[in-house]
Amino acid sequence: MKTKENHKTVIIDWKPNKNLDKPIYLQIVEYICNKISNGHWLIGSYLPSQRELSKLFDVNRSTIVSAMDELVSLGIIESSFGGGTKIISNTWSLLISKENLDWNKYVKSGLFKSNNSTIQTIIKLEFEDYIRLGTGELSPGLFPHHMMNKIFNKLSTKAYSLNYTEPLGLIDLRIAISNRLKKLGINANPSSILITSGSLQALQLISISMIKKGSTVFTEDPSYLKSLEIFQSAGINLSGIPMDNEGIKYWDINNSLKTIDRNLYNCLLYTIPSFQNPTGTTMTTKRRKDLFEFCKKHQLPVIEDCAYSELWIDEAPPLPLKSMDVNGMVLYVGTISKTLAPGLRIGWIIGPESIIERLGDVKMQLDYGASSLSQLVLTEFFESGLYDEHLTYLRKELKIRRDNAINSLNEYFKDLGTWNIPSGGFYIWLTLKNNISIDKLFKESLKEHILLNIGSIYSFKANHSLRISYAYEDCLTFRNAICKLSKIIRNIS
Amino acid sequence: MKTKENHKTVIIDWKPNKNLDKPIYLQIVEYICNKISNGHWLIGSYLPSQRELSKLFDVNRSTIVSAMDELVSLGIIESSFGGGTKIISNTWSLLISKENLDWNKYVKSGLFKSNNSTIQTIIKLEFEDYIRLGTGELSPGLFPHHMMNKIFNKLSTKAYSLNYTEPLGLIDLRIAISNRLKKLGINANPSSILITSGSLQALQLISISMIKKGSTVFTEDPSYLKSLEIFQSAGINLSGIPMDNEGIKYWDINNSLKTIDRNLYNCLLYTIPSFQNPTGTTMTTKRRKDLFEFCKKHQLPVIEDCAYSELWIDEAPPLPLKSMDVNGMVLYVGTISKTLAPGLRIGWIIGPESIIERLGDVKMQLDYGASSLSQLVLTEFFESGLYDEHLTYLRKELKIRRDNAINSLNEYFKDLGTWNIPSGGFYIWLTLKNNISIDKLFKESLKEHILLNIGSIYSFKANHSLRISYAYEDCLTFRNAICKLSKIIRNIS
Repeated sequence: MKTKENHKTVIIDWKPNKNLDKPIYLQIVEYICNKISNGHWLIGSYLPSQRELSKLFDVNRSTIVSAMDELVSLGIIESSFGGGTKIISNTWSLLISKENLDWNKYVKSGLFKSNNSTIQTIIKLEFEDYIRLGTGELSPGLFPHHMMNKIFNKLSTKAYSLNYTEPLGLIDLRIAISNRLKKLGINANPSSILITSGSLQALQLISISMIKKGSTVFTEDPSYLKSLEIFQSAGINLSGIPMDNEGIKYWDINNSLKTIDRNLYNCLLYTIPSFQNPTGTTMTTKRRKDLFEFCKKHQLPVIEDCAYSELWIDEAPPLPLKSMDVNGMVLYVGTISKTLAPGLRIGWIIGPESIIERLGDVKMQLDYGASSLSQLVLTEFFESGLYDEHLTYLRKELKIRRDNAINSLNEYFKDLGTWNIPSGGFYIWLTLKNNISIDKLFKESLKEHILLNIGSIYSFKANHSLRISYAYEDCLTFRNAICKLSKIIRNIS
Repeated sequence: MKTKENHKTVIIDWKPNKNLDKPIYLQIVEYICNKISNGHWLIGSYLPSQRELSKLFDVNRSTIVSAMDELVSLGIIESSFGGGTKIISNTWSLLISKENLDWNKYVKSGLFKSNNSTIQTIIKLEFEDYIRLGTGELSPGLFPHHMMNKIFNKLSTKAYSLNYTEPLGLIDLRIAISNRLKKLGINANPSSILITSGSLQALQLISISMIKKGSTVFTEDPSYLKSLEIFQSAGINLSGIPMDNEGIKYWDINNSLKTIDRNLYNCLLYTIPSFQNPTGTTMTTKRRKDLFEFCKKHQLPVIEDCAYSELWIDEAPPLPLKSMDVNGMVLYVGTISKTLAPGLRIGWIIGPESIIERLGDVKMQLDYGASSLSQLVLTEFFESGLYDEHLTYLRKELKIRRDNAINSLNEYFKDLGTWNIPSGGFYIWLTLKNNISIDKLFKESLKEHILLNIGSIYSFKANHSLRISYAYEDCLTFRNAICKLSKIIRNIS
């Protein structure tokens, strides 16, 4: 039928199938998108009124409203007051909408899952004016601008190229990293080092090019890894293994291992042994040795994430697992994002040369290497000794901040929760009493301009915890925010 | 059975199946890898001698040699003279080898295809001492070090952060790009701009998060896109459409379109309208208009790659397709890799806000944004006017180099081939006479330390062409190399 309006309208000769699993409003959106992408409905033509659509499709008015909202947000139609609903199209949106109209479903079925909505909210609010009590970044005030100026000066007098670098990354940077690793008992020559665009990309490269769909990655529960969609997006299962205060209770992996047909599926372990994210726990030397033997015995390859290991406050952590590794069982992942500047986007993977070469080939296809400028600057930081000087300064600063954080918690949270005292890194894992709704706390805190990283982002189980970071806000702001947070909790308890 | 040697050896109770499609040596490698990863064969134990293995598996000695070579290159066994073959393992290699023993097959079945071997060779040799006659980079000598020093100085006095940037990229950079685009007739506000780690990543983001498997991407034949595995890795078909000297013969798409069920599969177009890579062709204004109308009519979304469009020599190219786009049909991809420095790794995508937001979300999962330092430096280049000053200089330099290139070809290649005269960009598409083996030419040239980018990398059809670039080598080196190349051709003809 045609509507009575003046402008050209479309013909509708179809009704949604109420017996399908697919929501009716999505069937309608899909129908409309198909009509447009088939060219049956032209751009510039008009849809009947919502009242008429409701009759034509034989559905409630509210279903029509949902469908129209979706189409507007995809940029496919445009409503004008009194003027009807015009098809304006957006061919790229049609690509999405034909595939799967619900974006969340779409990205789940595609290669990349959408970030979970709490994480999306946090990422967005981080760039607004909130007190960031749990963020995974150093305070920008701790960045050594004076050192950076020295490096700019030095670069001004040097011959350098900002062309593409070698496939594995700038050779001078790889040499500098190789030298630093020696102090950690790791012998890695430059051809066993791949420079990545941050350590997140390192994990991405491993997940997409090494690990089979259906494989299982074991990791500490809670773990930073749970907050990422990297492995899940590649169809890999994450399995959380409990921790005690010496680190991951690796013997719990045994039970899970027995249920997996290892002829069909791969298993591996992801661990952050030092100043773990989000619990702040550091694995003891004994646990490291036992874990390593366990992994060797069970042929369980290891991804060792050492993002925080240089940030010790009280004493240097035990040597990395990689230092015990002679058989290429461990892929070691490092970065300067937590010690110097995440914005440089530099990380690295250490592993057997054959593996590094393959990961490097995939990286070339992804982005043709990390920023040469970032690599040059970091090489200067390492070679000049400025980086170590900065670390010494940073450890003192983090000690002051950690002590202030613990004092603040002692003052305001004694009766509200429990926490650990980390010996390095950024994080305190604060567990609140059970009667508090963490979601409500998150929302109420936002009203007071405090942004929280709630425990459910990191944990495999329901919990009443928060990841608290003392690395971002200054001592006074941190203390005041903790005070305010305690009041919010008392109010909603 | 056990061998008579002293050290602990393994037990072999299996024979390869000669009726299978899988090569026998791979069956053996797979068997050995499975034994190790199941824990039946321990690290440190020894394999029987090659002679014994040949008997046990009932295969030729040469098959055993192939299998052992594969296992050694994977880092799984180690041969020692007189001491037998020891299992040393490399658990990560076992992950690969269990999945699919032949890495090339593995990556083909995985998400990412391995780069084709000619391209891998070229990438590696680019970092050795070769004359690069076809490379896609500016000469490092054309990088404006003095401008960079000014920018370093300016940054030294500024407050800036090297923390993570906003999800879409540094806002100041997006504003600067938005302003530059206005001159090209494109109205794009900063929220419709996504900063990427180079334009290669821009294409990657589009391919993995927007385009359905089985879809078809039409593109010029030859095209830069053919040399990438990006779309093929995502299961997308590339279809080459012939060009004439006004650009892509879009009407040829019609025939292909008819064979595709557009209810099931998406189609889109990738085009480099200005100074096309690799042919140097620039699409005329009329062809752009006609192409745009064609795409509109057929609901064919467009990826417009404008990497070279600022590098005009004789006159500015026509306005981009994006300038005609009111319905969000075109995703515009830009970069400074060809004009300033590929090592900064900065590109951008312009598109409907809903699409940009989604691509940005995927980018955050890939690498958490492009280098902030690169973004800061580029913002200064744009805002200070230094970038435009550099472009003016570059156009003059490229004119000198292009004229030198054409003169060199006129002098040495008149009877050997045909070529176009590009009005901008880097490339000349040199087509040689049919009786020359291009593969032989590639190899003979390597002996003379000349690295060629042969046409088969870019073309969908067999051809006798080379992509020649005048942007990398200086005029004298270029001329001498062209002279040498002509001699090589005469020798092998």
